[in-house]
Amino acid sequence: MKSQITNAISDFFFEYETPRQVLVRDRRVGVACRLIQLGVLGYIIGWVFIYENGYQSTDTAISSVYTKMKGVGYTKINGTESVWDVSDYVFPPQGDSSFVVMTNFIMTEGQQMGKCPELILFQGQMTGVCVNKTKTCEVVTWCPVEDDSSIPYPPLLMSAENYTLFIKNSVTFPLFGVKRSNLVEGIDTGYISKCIYHPENDPLCPIFKLGDIVKFSGFNFETIAKLGGAIGIVVDWTCNLDLDKKYCKPEYTFHGLYGNADETDVTRTSVGYNFRYAKYYMEGKVQKRTLFKVFGIRIDIIVQSLARKFDIIPTLTAIGSGVGIFGVATVVCDLVLLHLLPKKEFYKNMKFKCTDSHIQVSSTLCINS
Amino acid sequence: MKSQITNAISDFFFEYETPRQVLVRDRRVGVACRLIQLGVLGYIIGWVFIYENGYQSTDTAISSVYTKMKGVGYTKINGTESVWDVSDYVFPPQGDSSFVVMTNFIMTEGQQMGKCPELILFQGQMTGVCVNKTKTCEVVTWCPVEDDSSIPYPPLLMSAENYTLFIKNSVTFPLFGVKRSNLVEGIDTGYISKCIYHPENDPLCPIFKLGDIVKFSGFNFETIAKLGGAIGIVVDWTCNLDLDKKYCKPEYTFHGLYGNADETDVTRTSVGYNFRYAKYYMEGKVQKRTLFKVFGIRIDIIVQSLARKFDIIPTLTAIGSGVGIFGVATVVCDLVLLHLLPKKEFYKNMKFKCTDSHIQVSSTLCINS
Amino acid sequence: MKSQITNAISDFFFEYETPRQVLVRDRRVGVACRLIQLGVLGYIIGWVFIYENGYQSTDTAISSVYTKMKGVGYTKINGTESVWDVSDYVFPPQGDSSFVVMTNFIMTEGQQMGKCPELILFQGQMTGVCVNKTKTCEVVTWCPVEDDSSIPYPPLLMSAENYTLFIKNSVTFPLFGVKRSNLVEGIDTGYISKCIYHPENDPLCPIFKLGDIVKFSGFNFETIAKLGGAIGIVVDWTCNLDLDKKYCKPEYTFHGLYGNADETDVTRTSVGYNFRYAKYYMEGKVQKRTLFKVFGIRIDIIVQSLARKFDIIPTLTAIGSGVGIFGVATVVCDLVLLHLLPKKEFYKNMKFKCTDSHIQVSSTLCINS
Repeated sequence: MKSQITNAISDFFFEYETPRQVLVRDRRVGVACRLIQLGVLGYIIGWVFIYENGYQSTDTAISSVYTKMKGVGYTKINGTESVWDVSDYVFPPQGDSSFVVMTNFIMTEGQQMGKCPELILFQGQMTGVCVNKTKTCEVVTWCPVEDDSSIPYPPLLMSAENYTLFIKNSVTFPLFGVKRSNLVEGIDTGYISKCIYHPENDPLCPIFKLGDIVKFSGFNFETIAKLGGAIGIVVDWTCNLDLDKKYCKPEYTFHGLYGNADETDVTRTSVGYNFRYAKYYMEGKVQKRTLFKVFGIRIDIIVQSLARKFDIIPTLTAIGSGVGIFGVATVVCDLVLLHLLPKKEFYKNMKFKCTDSHIQVSSTLCINS
Repeated sequence: MKSQITNAISDFFFEYETPRQVLVRDRRVGVACRLIQLGVLGYIIGWVFIYENGYQSTDTAISSVYTKMKGVGYTKINGTESVWDVSDYVFPPQGDSSFVVMTNFIMTEGQQMGKCPELILFQGQMTGVCVNKTKTCEVVTWCPVEDDSSIPYPPLLMSAENYTLFIKNSVTFPLFGVKRSNLVEGIDTGYISKCIYHPENDPLCPIFKLGDIVKFSGFNFETIAKLGGAIGIVVDWTCNLDLDKKYCKPEYTFHGLYGNADETDVTRTSVGYNFRYAKYYMEGKVQKRTLFKVFGIRIDIIVQSLARKFDIIPTLTAIGSGVGIFGVATVVCDLVLLHLLPKKEFYKNMKFKCTDSHIQVSSTLCINS
Repeated sequence: MKSQITNAISDFFFEYETPRQVLVRDRRVGVACRLIQLGVLGYIIGWVFIYENGYQSTDTAISSVYTKMKGVGYTKINGTESVWDVSDYVFPPQGDSSFVVMTNFIMTEGQQMGKCPELILFQGQMTGVCVNKTKTCEVVTWCPVEDDSSIPYPPLLMSAENYTLFIKNSVTFPLFGVKRSNLVEGIDTGYISKCIYHPENDPLCPIFKLGDIVKFSGFNFETIAKLGGAIGIVVDWTCNLDLDKKYCKPEYTFHGLYGNADETDVTRTSVGYNFRYAKYYMEGKVQKRTLFKVFGIRIDIIVQSLARKFDIIPTLTAIGSGVGIFGVATVVCDLVLLHLLPKKEFYKNMKFKCTDSHIQVSSTLCINS
């Protein structure tokens, strides 16, 4: 018994089986099949490996974004000069990846809780009293109520066009253990202190002029400044980590998200970007507030990342799958050989061997005798 | 030499090799094998291609969300009427995808820096003096200290149930170059001005009643309004872009994230959602503040997206891999044929040919003579 | 005609074709080929299935994060005692996954709109008047202008080291319908009330000391507290859902994102994390503000998730692809057998059969007669 197992194992290791094949010497079939096979090989090598990088595994990044606006706005409303700095016009103030830059506003000063006629519906809690002069009813609300029927034009903070935005973005590809910052090699303090992003001349400068951002995303500054709008700044990290990591650099693109005049089909329903916020204060013992209806440019920094690096698994999977497709090529050639060629019966006889007591005739290969 | 290479090349192109095969005419083996092969074919076509869309490549979207609450709340505390509008009850105000709607609060008015006995531990910097009456020690802190031992019930802003939320969401599938907005075809200004989301009747209306959101996510409004809670609104974009892109529409679902009474196993430890914020003001030359402990409904808009489109690479990978599995079917059939059938020795002789000077006997196929 | 089709179908079902093979009984070739085949088999089973879990499909989670800081800070500036609680030092207040803890600040009290000489360039709108004493020109701005030339050291809120952060994180794997919270089994109210996260002793405690977070991410607290910095807390959910879901637990890791002294190559350009915000108030009828330049620790909670579960599709794809690679092993062995061995001509004759009237000679297998 033991020697039988030993025999079986030695048979297994010392023997090797390889398929027997027919060599068909036919020019047309030969050329056709070789071309199909070369096509499959070309597809596997050219498309899967070179074009689609099938030999690499991919990873997306964990990212963190920090932003900082700079610039000062100036308004003169009814003779009152005002200056608006970053803490006045950026919401929220703490440098998030998504924020709003105020470009226009409707200010309602000195509101306090009381009863006054509403201007539009649902501005407060109805008191039941209606007023003839304004033809609306009285509500309990913050008085005087906001009148947003006309939006200032030109926008009050047109100077926002010259504000600058500094973006700091760090990405980590956890699978490959690679960490990058958008302040890549060569982007040092000296360069940053004087550069402004430009798609061709300064594509890696992390400082952007707000007017440029609006222009690159296809908006008109005056229009977006009046009513507000949303812009996505995509920081694209598409990296081939088989190369040195210093070639892994960000690319910035700009997209209008809402309020774009071009998208006539979907966004006409609701153009612009606005929200209300209030500054609260006490006057005497009375709680008051200054209400702002803010029109602004909302900027979303969107980090998109895809790193690739050689990996044995996808390589072998692509090869294995390619061998399978090779098999399909053989099946196609066999179909031609055995069913379409004039000498198909001859080739069938060469390729197949019948079991049992068959007589090999021409119409069907093996028939019962 | 040159003619040798030319010969080799012409041999390569004009010859075609195809495996020689044995046709086994055995009903049981034949039927079994064909069924296995048909099963594999059915799996590849039915499951991989039709059910799992193996012929398509997939992409997730870059998305941007903008929200806007509407509605007015009304409270009467100790005879003081107050009205709460959007800028009073939404945090943060600028229309982010994640925000909190205040539904209940504990207000501590007129706090100023000073020394007072604390109510619970660690409310300030110890002064070393302890007070008999309250049985606690004196701290330097904002005085008077907040007393949050009892939470108002019914919640002060139960009217929040009728607030509405407008969601604007745009998605871009960068791989396929497709851009969509949740204001799809047919959702125009006229429709939006009067619709309220309803899962069956108005599944595409982007305006949601806060009370509905709470109900759909499985909470009781009164409970969540008292202690706060978190709700995720998932905007699901599952799109087959082989069809016209107008069929790519969002679907809204609602999920309780914390504070759900059902999840008794995990969330009992910490029910509710609250945070503190302060309104600062100067009285005379003294810095004062009104502290709010805010209980509210936190809403996270979560965009989930998966677009599919025909792509040659996954198609061929699926075919190639399927051919490989076909090979497994042949191996299984061969095992049956060569080891389990009564006539297995006969089939072995048909299938295999020995090299060297073997004598073919029945027990092992090729043995050394 | 009908009987012909019936015949073809019965032929198809009752016949089974299996490739004819040559059994090569050669020790070297046999052992080499078997080792290659075993290697491929080992790779498929060991690497693809066991190491890379090729039999499982994967899913990433939808997640929601809620944070809550606790702790009180204390400063004594020019004899004025102040206490800083959560609503004073956390931005934004509502418990987002990304927030800033103030650790140091430059306060400019009582600013009001006016004309004053700037300290650095571009602090306001030029008036055209220049001042000899300060050697700068007059601007319309919030006066007095901020002087941020010296940053307080030691940091004013060094006590921030003892603040605690509570993280509540829920994840949902939509593909597998599994929902988890970081308050896993065993993390109950009793435990939470007294635990502090420690990587070995309390790896599941969701309460973190700010000083620990800074230490784990490789920063020095005093340095980061002075100038600010950014830290990522990664909550890693790597789950094998073939096991019971109670084994699906979070793991916390800490990463410095900016301002890390180690990354000398990239971040020297811009160390620290700061932003400005203002508290507005009315004095008489004049709008005033207290401007803060806030230096702080920005904390980003980053949820990373990957769940795996058995799935038939990737299993069969891996098997199919593996069979294809098996085919590659046969091709390699055949190359050795037919081109490198001394008896290669003999093996060629065994393996191949020529069609047409060829004479089989040694140099090329089939030549035209």
